[in-house]
Amino acid sequence: MTKKLLRIGMIGYGFMGRAHSNAYAKVNHFFDLEYRPVLTAACARNAEAVQAFADTWGYASLETDWRKLIARPDVDAIDICVPNHLHREIAVAAAAAGKAILCEKPLAMNAQEGEEMCRAVEAAGVPNMVWYNYRRVPAVTLAKRIIDSGQLGKIFHYRANFLQDWTISADVPQGGGGLWRLDVAAAGSGVTGDLLAHCIDTAIWLNGGIRDVTAMTETFVKQRKHVETGKLEPVGIDDACAFLCHFQNGSLGLFESTRYARGHKALYTFEINGEHGSLRWDLHDLHRLEFFDHRDAGALRGWRSIHVTDHGGEHPYMNHWWVPGLQIGYEHSFVHQVADFLEGYAKGQPVAPTFRDALETQKVCDAVLASANQRRWENVV
Amino acid sequence: MTKKLLRIGMIGYGFMGRAHSNAYAKVNHFFDLEYRPVLTAACARNAEAVQAFADTWGYASLETDWRKLIARPDVDAIDICVPNHLHREIAVAAAAAGKAILCEKPLAMNAQEGEEMCRAVEAAGVPNMVWYNYRRVPAVTLAKRIIDSGQLGKIFHYRANFLQDWTISADVPQGGGGLWRLDVAAAGSGVTGDLLAHCIDTAIWLNGGIRDVTAMTETFVKQRKHVETGKLEPVGIDDACAFLCHFQNGSLGLFESTRYARGHKALYTFEINGEHGSLRWDLHDLHRLEFFDHRDAGALRGWRSIHVTDHGGEHPYMNHWWVPGLQIGYEHSFVHQVADFLEGYAKGQPVAPTFRDALETQKVCDAVLASANQRRWENVV
Amino acid sequence: MTKKLLRIGMIGYGFMGRAHSNAYAKVNHFFDLEYRPVLTAACARNAEAVQAFADTWGYASLETDWRKLIARPDVDAIDICVPNHLHREIAVAAAAAGKAILCEKPLAMNAQEGEEMCRAVEAAGVPNMVWYNYRRVPAVTLAKRIIDSGQLGKIFHYRANFLQDWTISADVPQGGGGLWRLDVAAAGSGVTGDLLAHCIDTAIWLNGGIRDVTAMTETFVKQRKHVETGKLEPVGIDDACAFLCHFQNGSLGLFESTRYARGHKALYTFEINGEHGSLRWDLHDLHRLEFFDHRDAGALRGWRSIHVTDHGGEHPYMNHWWVPGLQIGYEHSFVHQVADFLEGYAKGQPVAPTFRDALETQKVCDAVLASANQRRWENVV
Amino acid sequence: MTKKLLRIGMIGYGFMGRAHSNAYAKVNHFFDLEYRPVLTAACARNAEAVQAFADTWGYASLETDWRKLIARPDVDAIDICVPNHLHREIAVAAAAAGKAILCEKPLAMNAQEGEEMCRAVEAAGVPNMVWYNYRRVPAVTLAKRIIDSGQLGKIFHYRANFLQDWTISADVPQGGGGLWRLDVAAAGSGVTGDLLAHCIDTAIWLNGGIRDVTAMTETFVKQRKHVETGKLEPVGIDDACAFLCHFQNGSLGLFESTRYARGHKALYTFEINGEHGSLRWDLHDLHRLEFFDHRDAGALRGWRSIHVTDHGGEHPYMNHWWVPGLQIGYEHSFVHQVADFLEGYAKGQPVAPTFRDALETQKVCDAVLASANQRRWENVV
Repeated sequence: MTKKLLRIGMIGYGFMGRAHSNAYAKVNHFFDLEYRPVLTAACARNAEAVQAFADTWGYASLETDWRKLIARPDVDAIDICVPNHLHREIAVAAAAAGKAILCEKPLAMNAQEGEEMCRAVEAAGVPNMVWYNYRRVPAVTLAKRIIDSGQLGKIFHYRANFLQDWTISADVPQGGGGLWRLDVAAAGSGVTGDLLAHCIDTAIWLNGGIRDVTAMTETFVKQRKHVETGKLEPVGIDDACAFLCHFQNGSLGLFESTRYARGHKALYTFEINGEHGSLRWDLHDLHRLEFFDHRDAGALRGWRSIHVTDHGGEHPYMNHWWVPGLQIGYEHSFVHQVADFLEGYAKGQPVAPTFRDALETQKVCDAVLASANQRRWENVV
Repeated sequence: MTKKLLRIGMIGYGFMGRAHSNAYAKVNHFFDLEYRPVLTAACARNAEAVQAFADTWGYASLETDWRKLIARPDVDAIDICVPNHLHREIAVAAAAAGKAILCEKPLAMNAQEGEEMCRAVEAAGVPNMVWYNYRRVPAVTLAKRIIDSGQLGKIFHYRANFLQDWTISADVPQGGGGLWRLDVAAAGSGVTGDLLAHCIDTAIWLNGGIRDVTAMTETFVKQRKHVETGKLEPVGIDDACAFLCHFQNGSLGLFESTRYARGHKALYTFEINGEHGSLRWDLHDLHRLEFFDHRDAGALRGWRSIHVTDHGGEHPYMNHWWVPGLQIGYEHSFVHQVADFLEGYAKGQPVAPTFRDALETQKVCDAVLASANQRRWENVV
Repeated sequence: MTKKLLRIGMIGYGFMGRAHSNAYAKVNHFFDLEYRPVLTAACARNAEAVQAFADTWGYASLETDWRKLIARPDVDAIDICVPNHLHREIAVAAAAAGKAILCEKPLAMNAQEGEEMCRAVEAAGVPNMVWYNYRRVPAVTLAKRIIDSGQLGKIFHYRANFLQDWTISADVPQGGGGLWRLDVAAAGSGVTGDLLAHCIDTAIWLNGGIRDVTAMTETFVKQRKHVETGKLEPVGIDDACAFLCHFQNGSLGLFESTRYARGHKALYTFEINGEHGSLRWDLHDLHRLEFFDHRDAGALRGWRSIHVTDHGGEHPYMNHWWVPGLQIGYEHSFVHQVADFLEGYAKGQPVAPTFRDALETQKVCDAVLASANQRRWENVV
Repeated sequence: MTKKLLRIGMIGYGFMGRAHSNAYAKVNHFFDLEYRPVLTAACARNAEAVQAFADTWGYASLETDWRKLIARPDVDAIDICVPNHLHREIAVAAAAAGKAILCEKPLAMNAQEGEEMCRAVEAAGVPNMVWYNYRRVPAVTLAKRIIDSGQLGKIFHYRANFLQDWTISADVPQGGGGLWRLDVAAAGSGVTGDLLAHCIDTAIWLNGGIRDVTAMTETFVKQRKHVETGKLEPVGIDDACAFLCHFQNGSLGLFESTRYARGHKALYTFEINGEHGSLRWDLHDLHRLEFFDHRDAGALRGWRSIHVTDHGGEHPYMNHWWVPGLQIGYEHSFVHQVADFLEGYAKGQPVAPTFRDALETQKVCDAVLASANQRRWENVV
């Protein structure tokens, strides 16, 4: 059967440019979909770098100005993989040009920008999605199913953290390449937008909205060399951030993120405790979900380590891959998100998280940063 | 060699009365000490219950009035194992009577009471100690050694929690027997004094003082039947408590406790992250210490699971027990504390945590409860 | 209530002498029994050592000749904690003297000796038991309950190993003190009798008799200094032993033991796989039982880690100890065995494993050693 | 840079056909190689099925007769992904046609066939490789590096097992589709060739050759419906197989495989114990390697869980993927094998495991099956 095509214009060629390109290239090998993504054009200011990227991935053409890319009639969808401070302008323009938009997270520098982006895509009526990819790790999707089935009962607690250790050395510079994440002008914030945003997106998805927060942030290394100026510059981002909160369902939340936790490369974990059971998950072993069911026979209760690789519809997405017991990894969450996006695209249905969904996370991030700054509880508005 | 005797007067016969009595009975079988504890008298208002307790443990005599116990010349040391609201009065009187005092934790209902108790023992010059027993779990003592050796370098983060699930049912009553912990009049607070106090004691011991806190508490079940009145009464304790804090050394702290976390019976965990390494521990597997050393060869770095059962001086206290690989349990932490107390007693040296040490924890608890009540940051004073 | 007394005569003062003495001293603090053990006499050839041992544990008198001990009318039960080559003679004499006998494992040097011991205790009609203590680790007892309930269905596989690493250095001598285990004259065999015997005892208890075996043994260090002669002597024990077998129920077995497995101090593990579920256990975390139940809902199947510390009759023996979540350790298995022995003693009932039960293990050990020696399958007879 | 092309002719379209196709499709996105595989032709007798397969993966053409495929001048390499009984004939013909050959494991039905295949490729001088993919899981490759560095010292023990549970139901038929693995005519053996062959290949690679074996096999379900005949037919394969062995370096080996171990979907584990350290690995968490180093400081020794995801050359192959902490999965082992094959192909160098390497595993399998059949030790010849 001939597939319909979704012609992709990719802006950016970094870590996320690779992750998304891989997803586009793989998705039709494993999912039977009406649409097939085509790698039509790659775009970045650095002509040499984007040429190499396009060669590797098989992009059919190049652009060095994103405005030209957006203007091309042979591009159906724009994928925004550039630093955060560029999201808003590109997204608003792409929406105006009638393109579908797949935007890397976090949505924007702040909720105000995010609101503008939401209005733009909604006014234009274009499909839009934000790459909070962890929702589609099978173990996390399974957690969602279990929670939505009511098996946990009333929820009391939710806790999450995202711990890394790669910026402990004061010799790591800021700005440029992958290090724009340390430059507040490009990133907007530090771990709050980069890491906690993932935790918050999952939390809202699994446990509903957040009402208020009390937070603290810290910048352990106060100055770092800036790659562009070559000089020591003040560090404007938060190296660590933690907050307490109330969810709208009355449960209590505890969140923490840092890049100063030795031994943790990318330890995103969450745990949720309900009246009848609990769940926990850990990105370092992403194919496992831990489940405690208080309704098991008393003597036999224990945390179950579910190896989320079964077929037959048991475990989300896994039918499409290998055989039970054989695990998939990080990259597959992006493949699943593309598959779902293409399915929604074919049906004309929105695919979560949309820009509007992602705006909720942005609002929590804003409240967290304000709370830390003001040393007081802040409502999420 | 004939041992000197330390004649114990035990007040209370509950869970802690048993744990301490076991420690007194066992300690000389495993530790070669100058002193031997003697179970001279057990005391409680309930004559029948205390008789049964004394029969089981071999206490030589009984009292039903703690004032009489304190007045006895054949008692050297008073062990206070009664609910929190009785600690102050007994301790002050015992100090005045010149008795050594071993007081169950938390020290008191609040810092004001605690301060009075400290002054009393210091004025009387009597040996005094509080049963924060987890310091003497071998894995925790080993953590202390590693931290004090400087192997972790500058500390960035400390996090701890103490999670239980035994009060989720609204049918659990308050007051009386082991349930005085749910009655604010007897306990002073809920999880803060009962569970977080342990976390705070260990944290201060391992990572130094706490500067300021922002906290939240919650009481999920608002009314419970009171065992004494037989009627539904408001619940005055905190069912859950979490707080963020700054330590005096500049590191960030995150603490949480609850009795509403399904699947966790007594999950006390802590983790500390420093420049060069990290440690974590978990009461559910108390004989293990997890250690990450960033100075290991790059390709071979990983969290080590240290089975803390070695001899030859490698692992604290373990020489006194069985052979490597064979684990001890919860009760042994009390034996170690008695052994250390007796050694200090023989030398006329204070043994930590003294009342004064435990007062620091009390002050943090007070600040936490005030912060939760006022919804603002509070300094620890 | 006044207890009846069981007056113990202990022969030996080593590791097991301590473990058993501790059990006698503790059992009535935690179990409400008709009988109370009394530490009447300790016996060993080394008068000084046995004096120190008696002082530590409170034995009321001493003997240096076990024949005199057995002749004493004020001793009800003989506890045999000496090296294996002495078991037979003492047990036969003690039986003839009408004493109850608690014999350290393995029962004997070989099945022939064991048979003689069985006949002696059966002819005399004296209570008798062998200290295969691991049956009474609560997690192991729970495994027994689950298997006996039929929840696993038809059994296909059983595997066990016991791995240590303490004799890798060729400088460890043989003979004398704790090192008699390396001296074939005292021990009879190496890991087969010392470690595999435990694995076999549990296996037969959980999964029934063993039909035939094919085995291999190895002695990695061929000569070690003998403590008594001071000279290098050939090593006669097996350093490692592994065997395959068929159980009488048709399931397949796989057993391995060694003292040359770096990183394992005392890693006794077993796993059993049945039609509907599986169980596994590990001495290094002895308070946990792993359970897989294939009849759980498909998407939610996983290995459960049961923290075997619950009360209310849920978890064997645990009612007698602390509160849920607080673990016990190695030594408690002996306390449980004494408690059960005293209960059987009061009722005049045998308590497993009796000498006759332990003889089954001895027969398997004999077949294993013969098979390794002959390089052929051997039937267990 | 324009890549040179390696034009693939794929025979078969099952599980392995997909795994290999995915590897060919992905390899140049992540590895910078001189050669690029091209999916030139897919071949299978079932024209409809192979058409669907080719559509999904983008094979440019189809064949339904493997002899025609081999005859095509536009095909450089033949990938054999059909049941075991067809390997020999195809491989010998492909070699004669001068094609490079990538053959799925096990190499052949038995060592005799394997020897013939070796001679064919060696006579023709064509590149040849067998898909023992687990060698190229980064954690396994890291294990190889550690062992080869000598860090473990003299090796004492090697143990491995491969446990599954998917054929416990007697309703699973044999023959046809993925179930040819249960049909002895197509598979040659059961778990021995399917699962143990993987364990043996890794073992020989890591620990050298195997000298002799004693084995047992079992067929728990004696009859299964045959998909082709529709009738109950005797089951000729081994459902379970275990063996003991001696390695040529003097270490002892223990191997087990079954499809009747409830709770294990594809639990391939190995452990190796040396004088100075030990390693273990588990396919269910394939991105982790456990390492014990006895030369660590005494008090701090413990099994390290190495999360094998680091860059900078630390962890094999991982530079090519995402960022530290983000795991890859099963499929990536095939990508690595293709990458290595293409590199060897460009240089004219053999890439292990060659047919000759895989023949060693075949010989061990033959000895194992003979030993189980004869109930005696067999030498590997």
